[in-house]
Amino acid sequence: MFCWLSRQYWGFSTPTGRMAHLIRGSLSRTLVVGSQRRTPEFSSFVARTNTCGELRSSHLGQEVTLCGWIQYRRQNIFLVLRDFHGLVQVVIPQEESAASVKKILCEAPVESVVQVSGTVISRPPGQENPKMPTGEIEVKVKTAELLNSCKKLPFEIKDFVKKTEALRLQYRYLDLRSFQMQYNLRLRSQMVMKMREYLCNLHGFVDIETPTLFKRTPGGAKEFVIPSREPGKFYCLPQSPQQFKQLLMVGGLDRYFQVARCYRDEGSRPDRQPEFTQIDIEMSFVDQTGIRSLIEGLLQYSWPNDKDPLVVPFPSMTFAEALASYGTDKPDTRFGMKIIDISDMFRNTEVGFLQDALSKPQGAVKAICISEGAKYLKRKDIESIRKFAADHFNQEVLPVFPKANRNWNTPVAQSILEEQRSGLIKLMEIQEDDVVLLTAGEHKKACSVLGKLRLECADLLEARGSVLRDPALFSFLWVVDFPLFLPKEENPGELESAHHPFTAPHPSDLQLLYTEPEKVRSQHYDLVLNGSEIGGGSIRIHDAELQHYILATLLKEDVKLLSHLLQALGFGAPPHGGIALGLDRLICLVTGAPSIRDVIAFPKSFRGHDLMSSAPESLPPEELKPYHIQVSWPADSEA
Amino acid sequence: MFCWLSRQYWGFSTPTGRMAHLIRGSLSRTLVVGSQRRTPEFSSFVARTNTCGELRSSHLGQEVTLCGWIQYRRQNIFLVLRDFHGLVQVVIPQEESAASVKKILCEAPVESVVQVSGTVISRPPGQENPKMPTGEIEVKVKTAELLNSCKKLPFEIKDFVKKTEALRLQYRYLDLRSFQMQYNLRLRSQMVMKMREYLCNLHGFVDIETPTLFKRTPGGAKEFVIPSREPGKFYCLPQSPQQFKQLLMVGGLDRYFQVARCYRDEGSRPDRQPEFTQIDIEMSFVDQTGIRSLIEGLLQYSWPNDKDPLVVPFPSMTFAEALASYGTDKPDTRFGMKIIDISDMFRNTEVGFLQDALSKPQGAVKAICISEGAKYLKRKDIESIRKFAADHFNQEVLPVFPKANRNWNTPVAQSILEEQRSGLIKLMEIQEDDVVLLTAGEHKKACSVLGKLRLECADLLEARGSVLRDPALFSFLWVVDFPLFLPKEENPGELESAHHPFTAPHPSDLQLLYTEPEKVRSQHYDLVLNGSEIGGGSIRIHDAELQHYILATLLKEDVKLLSHLLQALGFGAPPHGGIALGLDRLICLVTGAPSIRDVIAFPKSFRGHDLMSSAPESLPPEELKPYHIQVSWPADSEA
Repeated sequence: MFCWLSRQYWGFSTPTGRMAHLIRGSLSRTLVVGSQRRTPEFSSFVARTNTCGELRSSHLGQEVTLCGWIQYRRQNIFLVLRDFHGLVQVVIPQEESAASVKKILCEAPVESVVQVSGTVISRPPGQENPKMPTGEIEVKVKTAELLNSCKKLPFEIKDFVKKTEALRLQYRYLDLRSFQMQYNLRLRSQMVMKMREYLCNLHGFVDIETPTLFKRTPGGAKEFVIPSREPGKFYCLPQSPQQFKQLLMVGGLDRYFQVARCYRDEGSRPDRQPEFTQIDIEMSFVDQTGIRSLIEGLLQYSWPNDKDPLVVPFPSMTFAEALASYGTDKPDTRFGMKIIDISDMFRNTEVGFLQDALSKPQGAVKAICISEGAKYLKRKDIESIRKFAADHFNQEVLPVFPKANRNWNTPVAQSILEEQRSGLIKLMEIQEDDVVLLTAGEHKKACSVLGKLRLECADLLEARGSVLRDPALFSFLWVVDFPLFLPKEENPGELESAHHPFTAPHPSDLQLLYTEPEKVRSQHYDLVLNGSEIGGGSIRIHDAELQHYILATLLKEDVKLLSHLLQALGFGAPPHGGIALGLDRLICLVTGAPSIRDVIAFPKSFRGHDLMSSAPESLPPEELKPYHIQVSWPADSEA
Repeated sequence: MFCWLSRQYWGFSTPTGRMAHLIRGSLSRTLVVGSQRRTPEFSSFVARTNTCGELRSSHLGQEVTLCGWIQYRRQNIFLVLRDFHGLVQVVIPQEESAASVKKILCEAPVESVVQVSGTVISRPPGQENPKMPTGEIEVKVKTAELLNSCKKLPFEIKDFVKKTEALRLQYRYLDLRSFQMQYNLRLRSQMVMKMREYLCNLHGFVDIETPTLFKRTPGGAKEFVIPSREPGKFYCLPQSPQQFKQLLMVGGLDRYFQVARCYRDEGSRPDRQPEFTQIDIEMSFVDQTGIRSLIEGLLQYSWPNDKDPLVVPFPSMTFAEALASYGTDKPDTRFGMKIIDISDMFRNTEVGFLQDALSKPQGAVKAICISEGAKYLKRKDIESIRKFAADHFNQEVLPVFPKANRNWNTPVAQSILEEQRSGLIKLMEIQEDDVVLLTAGEHKKACSVLGKLRLECADLLEARGSVLRDPALFSFLWVVDFPLFLPKEENPGELESAHHPFTAPHPSDLQLLYTEPEKVRSQHYDLVLNGSEIGGGSIRIHDAELQHYILATLLKEDVKLLSHLLQALGFGAPPHGGIALGLDRLICLVTGAPSIRDVIAFPKSFRGHDLMSSAPESLPPEELKPYHIQVSWPADSEA
């Protein structure tokens, strides 16, 4: 297999830290997704005969033409040329007859673009560079042309040169020359291509483009509005192709997919991209099992060859179980430290706050055991954990150590320790160096706080050198059986959809819809990877009356806004379901990138700005005139 | 090869007219793009064992489960079931023990969705239907389930039932069930998939998504604006990823492609889609020849197997030649009737308006010869052609018949006829039944009017039964050497870009930039198919100074709006070029669809409306508040 994209090609110095571990682990192998495919022809249609990165001893004696950027120059004798494929050493001719070639190559600033032609020769014995994939050869240049000269750069194009993210985004076109960005974008392209092959070529899915100029959906407060040239009429940018994909099923398209651009205006919420991409899928005549198998096959098929193959099926867990054991609907199952219910041990406690908790409905005592916590965590860590729980959850959290001789000041803790420690140690199989964090309160709240602390402690332990999560491990998990409705935050007497109003109820709970709708489970499923939600979907409602009942009676929505969908369901809608995978997040996890901005060519900043072109920008009133809008300046601003 | 999508599968009655000819020509063969690929598994992950359309004698005796729509029912004995794949006949059980199955299948309205299980059996001798691909077999049903009942439909789901387009768009989800829409959307999906394989797998292109929330480009009067939550700040939806693709080249991505959603607000201009899709391509170190070869290979590779293979390279023609011979920059080269310059024959004419024309700069006499025009065209046709030229171009057009004995009333025509007819007949090789249309005037105007009449006459001849253009013929043509600049329409003393300001000048004309810029040819190229422009691109300017000179000095644009691009060119931009293919138009021509709306799943109407969901729509002022905008109602409207 031909290794056409790896760090080795570039011969760069390796970065440090956890990212480095991830990169080294994956890039020392190769990135050719799909083992049977031929290498793409990188030099078709262009002036070059070869890429810089591909030359080897097998090319010795060949006349080659290369195009690339000057990476650096040594003593006006050698020049290292770079393209997307790698680095190669070029020998600058020193003869008088080649003075013009020498002048070009010696005077061009670093990052200038040149085209050189010459012969591939062996490096002199002892001068080979085994760290460089092209390190056995060099190119003896005969002719050279300066294609473009480079001005003084705002930063060096070297991965090890640290830049602020703002600077990287302002000069994104320079940042894209880095190995890491090239790797991320190429891996993304290849994974998506494999997904398309799987869906389109292997399983008969139809790639269908749906509109992005649409109308507002009920409750679509996060949708960008676009004024039209008709006074007072607006399009909206949809948050997902949800309605269209369902209508395609009504239209008999049977199997739809799209790599869909979606839009969400989160306003002030930081670190969200206003536009993002999802692998959007919908199928007719399918159930949950079918969708899950499809997605498992999809990920297995498109998974990069430089990673361990995925094992399917992925495990699954109910929402209730995820909450009880991990305190979240997106458990990071790469490590243990599960939440344990220890209420029964404290039924007869005399400690006030435990009594209190247990006497209330849903009251419970919960704990997690931090392996080797006593070894890695310092006293101030424990204190900051307790403070975090108090500040963010208003929850008391008590540390329990198996060794009683530690001196802790909290009187309550002491009394607990004396009374139940030994029982706890036995129940939770606590080792000598472990620490238990204990809390009490309403079930969901107690689980949530411990779920959060579980992740905080994992980060802490890893920062202190404990190996908790294998960076090469990708831990997928299905979470199922979510509630169909949740009480509205602002008015808990009313219900809102836990996901969206088209989600079908669990067949076993159908009758509860008319009696205790808040207890109905849905046919929604989430796909979680390493503690991040990377996808979600559901079996949809295909019955017009049921959909109408849920929208009008239970959710009290204005059904007029969805009349086209309700009508469509009445005209022979097949049973159907689907899913959407968040592509940016998925690629981010696969590449081990610190931010989704690192897997998007031109991301917006934290605040939704394009720092390169400075969008969004002010427009003169006359450019707004055709759209019949004007700016309403806030009272405290200057127009 | 497995034929998985053809009209044969459906057994529908064939439509009539020219479309029918196109469809029969192409669909009697098969639509499996790529000959080596295995058939997709259409029944993976779902309840059915087979699709309706795939059952054959080879399935005899098999127990199958099918899901589909009730197409029609005969005497409560047979039922024809339809899915995306085709039709199959189902035998309704008549035994008492199967009464419930019979009840379900006999009572469900047409277009209801059912799932049936049963055995594939031979049709009784004499009852085979050779017109139906599944016509040798039928399915003897054992169990049936009504998955969804269908209400009374607004129209029948049959291709031969004529509907207004407004009705089709209002109930698009029903219209999508038609054979033609299924065919169009599936062919589109498959052609795009093959294009991706060619670009990504064979030639190392990277599929990169670029933002659609961007800033206004200079002169971008057709860009939708999107208010942000910052008062007075707007994003814009780009007309193409032009800037981003060039910046990707500066970023060293080497080969970029994207199936890119683009936006153009044409306001009142009818029959334009406000959002459309282009195959967007950019390469580094490439010249015109490289791009052309790439595109020829791309189309050849992705061309549907049910059409004749494409022959490459495509012919090419300069813009000047296209104008002179066809009167347009997008010649329909499927037929002759070229424009001939006959000025020399009239140098000594005494006919006033010819003298006039020839005495002016660029004055010329031009003609086209309509083969068998005298046979197919009626006198009123000729009159309406002349009226068209007079009304739309203010041009006099004279018909010339080789047979002098025809009586034409125009005195001028008579005098021309007598004087030059025989010479003309000789020069233009005019046959007895032909008609020549002659005009005189400024070169470009005379060519334009004859170019237009050439197309009008071709339509007329074909409507009268002449076979001029083979419906199976796809005639590609490159048009090159466009002017780089055009005089501004509103102020001819100033220049504007003929295409866009990033287009590189023709290398031979570089010096003219500083002396006679209006004479500079560009490195722009258009791809024309059957008289429609389906693509265009150029080699770009990669020199920052040249780009600045053109923007600031020649075009007098505000360079601040493009400062990021100008800066990028200075930081080692490689030579680069690219192209964009209009996907909607291409698929429209390939499928022979009458409108691009027929190759888009959910198109906007003529006026830019979504007739299904009624977008754009009014929004209450409070929904505009977060965006700091308000509607400026025109004086004559009611808020």
